[in-house]
Amino acid sequence: MRIGIVGVSGYGGSELLRLCVEHPGFEIVFAGGESTAGQALAQRFPALAGRPEGALVIQRFAPERVGELDLLFASLPTGMSRELLARLPKSMKIVDVGGDHRFLKGWTYGLTELPGQRAKIARTTRLANPGCYPAAALLALAPLVKEGLIELENIVIDAKSGITGTGRGGGSDYGYVETNEDVFAYGLESHPHVPEMERALEQVAGRKATVAFTAHLVPMSRGILATCYARPRGAMQMARLHDAARACYDGETFVKVVSVENGRSAHTAWATGSNLAFLSYGINRRTGLVIAFGAIDNLGKGAAAQAVQNANLMTGQPESTGLSGLPLLT
Amino acid sequence: MRIGIVGVSGYGGSELLRLCVEHPGFEIVFAGGESTAGQALAQRFPALAGRPEGALVIQRFAPERVGELDLLFASLPTGMSRELLARLPKSMKIVDVGGDHRFLKGWTYGLTELPGQRAKIARTTRLANPGCYPAAALLALAPLVKEGLIELENIVIDAKSGITGTGRGGGSDYGYVETNEDVFAYGLESHPHVPEMERALEQVAGRKATVAFTAHLVPMSRGILATCYARPRGAMQMARLHDAARACYDGETFVKVVSVENGRSAHTAWATGSNLAFLSYGINRRTGLVIAFGAIDNLGKGAAAQAVQNANLMTGQPESTGLSGLPLLT
Amino acid sequence: MRIGIVGVSGYGGSELLRLCVEHPGFEIVFAGGESTAGQALAQRFPALAGRPEGALVIQRFAPERVGELDLLFASLPTGMSRELLARLPKSMKIVDVGGDHRFLKGWTYGLTELPGQRAKIARTTRLANPGCYPAAALLALAPLVKEGLIELENIVIDAKSGITGTGRGGGSDYGYVETNEDVFAYGLESHPHVPEMERALEQVAGRKATVAFTAHLVPMSRGILATCYARPRGAMQMARLHDAARACYDGETFVKVVSVENGRSAHTAWATGSNLAFLSYGINRRTGLVIAFGAIDNLGKGAAAQAVQNANLMTGQPESTGLSGLPLLT
Amino acid sequence: MRIGIVGVSGYGGSELLRLCVEHPGFEIVFAGGESTAGQALAQRFPALAGRPEGALVIQRFAPERVGELDLLFASLPTGMSRELLARLPKSMKIVDVGGDHRFLKGWTYGLTELPGQRAKIARTTRLANPGCYPAAALLALAPLVKEGLIELENIVIDAKSGITGTGRGGGSDYGYVETNEDVFAYGLESHPHVPEMERALEQVAGRKATVAFTAHLVPMSRGILATCYARPRGAMQMARLHDAARACYDGETFVKVVSVENGRSAHTAWATGSNLAFLSYGINRRTGLVIAFGAIDNLGKGAAAQAVQNANLMTGQPESTGLSGLPLLT
Repeated sequence: MRIGIVGVSGYGGSELLRLCVEHPGFEIVFAGGESTAGQALAQRFPALAGRPEGALVIQRFAPERVGELDLLFASLPTGMSRELLARLPKSMKIVDVGGDHRFLKGWTYGLTELPGQRAKIARTTRLANPGCYPAAALLALAPLVKEGLIELENIVIDAKSGITGTGRGGGSDYGYVETNEDVFAYGLESHPHVPEMERALEQVAGRKATVAFTAHLVPMSRGILATCYARPRGAMQMARLHDAARACYDGETFVKVVSVENGRSAHTAWATGSNLAFLSYGINRRTGLVIAFGAIDNLGKGAAAQAVQNANLMTGQPESTGLSGLPLLT
Repeated sequence: MRIGIVGVSGYGGSELLRLCVEHPGFEIVFAGGESTAGQALAQRFPALAGRPEGALVIQRFAPERVGELDLLFASLPTGMSRELLARLPKSMKIVDVGGDHRFLKGWTYGLTELPGQRAKIARTTRLANPGCYPAAALLALAPLVKEGLIELENIVIDAKSGITGTGRGGGSDYGYVETNEDVFAYGLESHPHVPEMERALEQVAGRKATVAFTAHLVPMSRGILATCYARPRGAMQMARLHDAARACYDGETFVKVVSVENGRSAHTAWATGSNLAFLSYGINRRTGLVIAFGAIDNLGKGAAAQAVQNANLMTGQPESTGLSGLPLLT
Repeated sequence: MRIGIVGVSGYGGSELLRLCVEHPGFEIVFAGGESTAGQALAQRFPALAGRPEGALVIQRFAPERVGELDLLFASLPTGMSRELLARLPKSMKIVDVGGDHRFLKGWTYGLTELPGQRAKIARTTRLANPGCYPAAALLALAPLVKEGLIELENIVIDAKSGITGTGRGGGSDYGYVETNEDVFAYGLESHPHVPEMERALEQVAGRKATVAFTAHLVPMSRGILATCYARPRGAMQMARLHDAARACYDGETFVKVVSVENGRSAHTAWATGSNLAFLSYGINRRTGLVIAFGAIDNLGKGAAAQAVQNANLMTGQPESTGLSGLPLLT
Repeated sequence: MRIGIVGVSGYGGSELLRLCVEHPGFEIVFAGGESTAGQALAQRFPALAGRPEGALVIQRFAPERVGELDLLFASLPTGMSRELLARLPKSMKIVDVGGDHRFLKGWTYGLTELPGQRAKIARTTRLANPGCYPAAALLALAPLVKEGLIELENIVIDAKSGITGTGRGGGSDYGYVETNEDVFAYGLESHPHVPEMERALEQVAGRKATVAFTAHLVPMSRGILATCYARPRGAMQMARLHDAARACYDGETFVKVVSVENGRSAHTAWATGSNLAFLSYGINRRTGLVIAFGAIDNLGKGAAAQAVQNANLMTGQPESTGLSGLPLLT
């Protein structure tokens, strides 16, 4: 399978590169990057240790330059991919990791484990990969929404993300010194992930949902924890929440429901570098609110690894091909 | 003023030590510590650079050992201070930084800027210092509660704390490797700070309040950000929230209301090492929920610096004596 | 190939676990751990996401408990493995990741790429894995020593290690708060890795070597950078250093010689999670001293991944089996 | 005393700002900054919490704009201050924190505790503040050099610095993600601090010295540890090293000699935010090499706090005015 990756200068693109180099079914024949154009892959990424074989050079992306590919991964800043990708031939499969095509006509939303999505993904040639925050929150909420266990109005989603979530273009705003030893909320006035979350929840529920979403930055490189608060519909017990989640994700390789132990939720570190998502559930004693936690690697299930999973489905390969690497345990 | 500090082996106690060494009105004549007993202060804390003069040795705390003091700061693990402090003479003023005496009879709750508290603090000899999470959340919520701008049921308080919040006794659970590059919720089943928050809110509101509180650990040493979500009472505008907060904290040295700029809330880093609290407010567009942010140093306004502010009041000194040190800007 | 791992409670042991779970030629049939005995692997390590299949439970290690194994990895604190491993049958191959058997009679030193070692490793059943600091320093120095380019007296090795280098038993000495935002030298009075380094250098050189070694701790989880200073023998040029290193490691999968670019040495981050070692060389302008840099993951090439590479050789498998995982690029 | 600060957009300049706001003898009447010009200080630095009183606005620096000042602190990137500062009146005292004037005619080198410097500093109106690496290394080496205890050829100085050492202009090269969990050497080809170190050592020794200096970046915001290796002149004992250091710094407020305890050197964290320098000494057992450790805050003794100490001397104030703030102990 001949593939290309556009956006290797960015965090998401370089993670795609890492996964595709390790992928037994993919041959990388095009690597596109703006700020690193002209550099050999091996020079730009010493940690690849000379892989893949053949001296691929990073090129400025233009649709006519990519040549004949079976599939192209695009990981471009928001607003930049719509026009460029439209010029690619219909026969070339596309996975857009960026935000330009989510819930657009002709594009399939690619959160694989969301109820009802897998079959659609296997049939599409135009795939819009989910945003990192939605991936974490939707996986946690979907089982509850699907079974009608929570109210759909005023769901609070309080998310904590590592710094890769800001993209590599952030410059001195996201310097080590500027973000180390600090926590704050950002993107308060508006966040493009909100409509995406509401649309996806509505699709699962068959009814309208409204979401209060707040993104926070925490001093780590990778990881998102979404802590979601919702009112239960009627009296609720932990067992029902767990039953719903386990039924929803029964047999899934990448989504794991874990009980709260010693009072602790799932950890983002459990997912680092992988396509895994860990979900935990609780019921707040004082208020009865349902709390759903989703922990992922924002570059893994929240971007590149999810994209590879989708590409596997779209190209008829086993879904977990190239995604069996485990997170570092320490 | 002759003072003593009990618990210098812990994070809160050593911060008290630092502040009291710098305090022009305090002479430290007793330093109590369990795990470091027998060590000279200068040996245990090289960063004190030989201060205070006179070779104070850390002693195991026993009420009969502290001698004649004007005031004692106690920073002991929960459950350990009640019996010990009861054996101290009535004439000795006590500031309990630990959690054993909050909202107990005979003890004054010491969140200075909470409406109505300052005058009570100035008159007491038994002061229960607030918990770190309550300090962050209550300062943010109090103005809204006081003016009746939010509903008091089901207030969601989603808090993010640095690792000092766990106390020094945490051992290998909170080793560098175990907490680095990770975020998770902890204390899910029950948290002693919830009744404290509800009691304090009720006191301000004159009505009952219920709180859904979730604590998270983030990889930094110091800092708490409390993100609080509440339903507004009637239509709400930003100006009313800001007016309420600015009126409530008008003239306060240590509580600062900051507008959201570039979509960002107050930062915990703005407070590191100081007694400052920074508050920001927002109204969520999709749901209309009011969001209040409180950012503090958990060892500063959340523990030791707040304790010194209270001690100043209790001993008739200007409230900000010894607390003018600024946070590191970088 | 039926294998066992002893010491999974520790950092090195859990990294072995991760690598062996991913290894296509290994079936883990015994997992030994002291502080975690009785827990299921799946419970202790949620990030394994249920792998390996079959509900393995961690057991307290005793030679009679491990059953029939082809190979045992032992990752125990220094001093604990000598007696225990002596009781295992001769037919069971052993890779001791700990320090008890290095340069002992009957044991082969397992730094695979050290000149002359590979063939010995392939024939042995008792393998002493190198220490983490020696692995970084020896790979950098070996080519220079082998070709006689540097003097062997008073080689300065100034090494910087992440916190996993201290082992998991470090407790509150290596808490997040105690090690974050700090650098210091430790183990100054004596370090068991010095004789190991000198013995290995002598073996390569055929002459005695003396080493001044200083270990430093830096606030990161993984990684060692060894910066080595030596006097050149005669006039020296960069080309000779590079030629020697490239000749020495020609064709090696895991050892990469990288030129200094923009004035920067190899980065430890290039190796994180992998068996890779990156080497850089320089000549100091003012003094003419040769500087050799070795950058590895202390748990990778410095422990577990090196151990798997050795086990592959000892069991007749391709040397890089199960070790093709790339470091995270961001 | 009316003072100005140029370069408040940078790390060193903002640290100067913090110290001068707290300084009882300084009134800040000019704040110059390039990238933040036009912003009010209070807006740019919320952590100042409204200090100093009076709404100072950051201005682009031009000599004619600063008005009448008693003293100006300049913290500009290398190469930018020479011409600009030459246009200031002779009567205005200048402390140049940048590197343009070190060891130039008419300028006094401002490492206060270096033997023989204090008296010169008190008399000068043109002060060149030392570089951060030289400050750490020179304080550690000076006593040994002064008493002739070490050879002056081929002194190895292996230094580890936090990220503020790179300056704020570093951009995405020093982003959180790019520097987190990594160690590497940088500036290998040439470093402007080498001639400075050699000149200063020669001044103390009365003989020529040569230095092999390597700078490393470690993932923390502040701090430098310089580990210096030198050959002893004749047989050497620890007591002689300590005696020399203690004699040299007897009575100094900011330089502390600490014995190696539990095999550990001085920690950079002991100095964070302060003007303190901590020195430790050792003799390597295998080689007899003398090892001298200097630990400072690169923005403290390595830049801004040292600058304030010099300014105090130049203006006839007690040397430690405004510098009594202690490092955070945790």
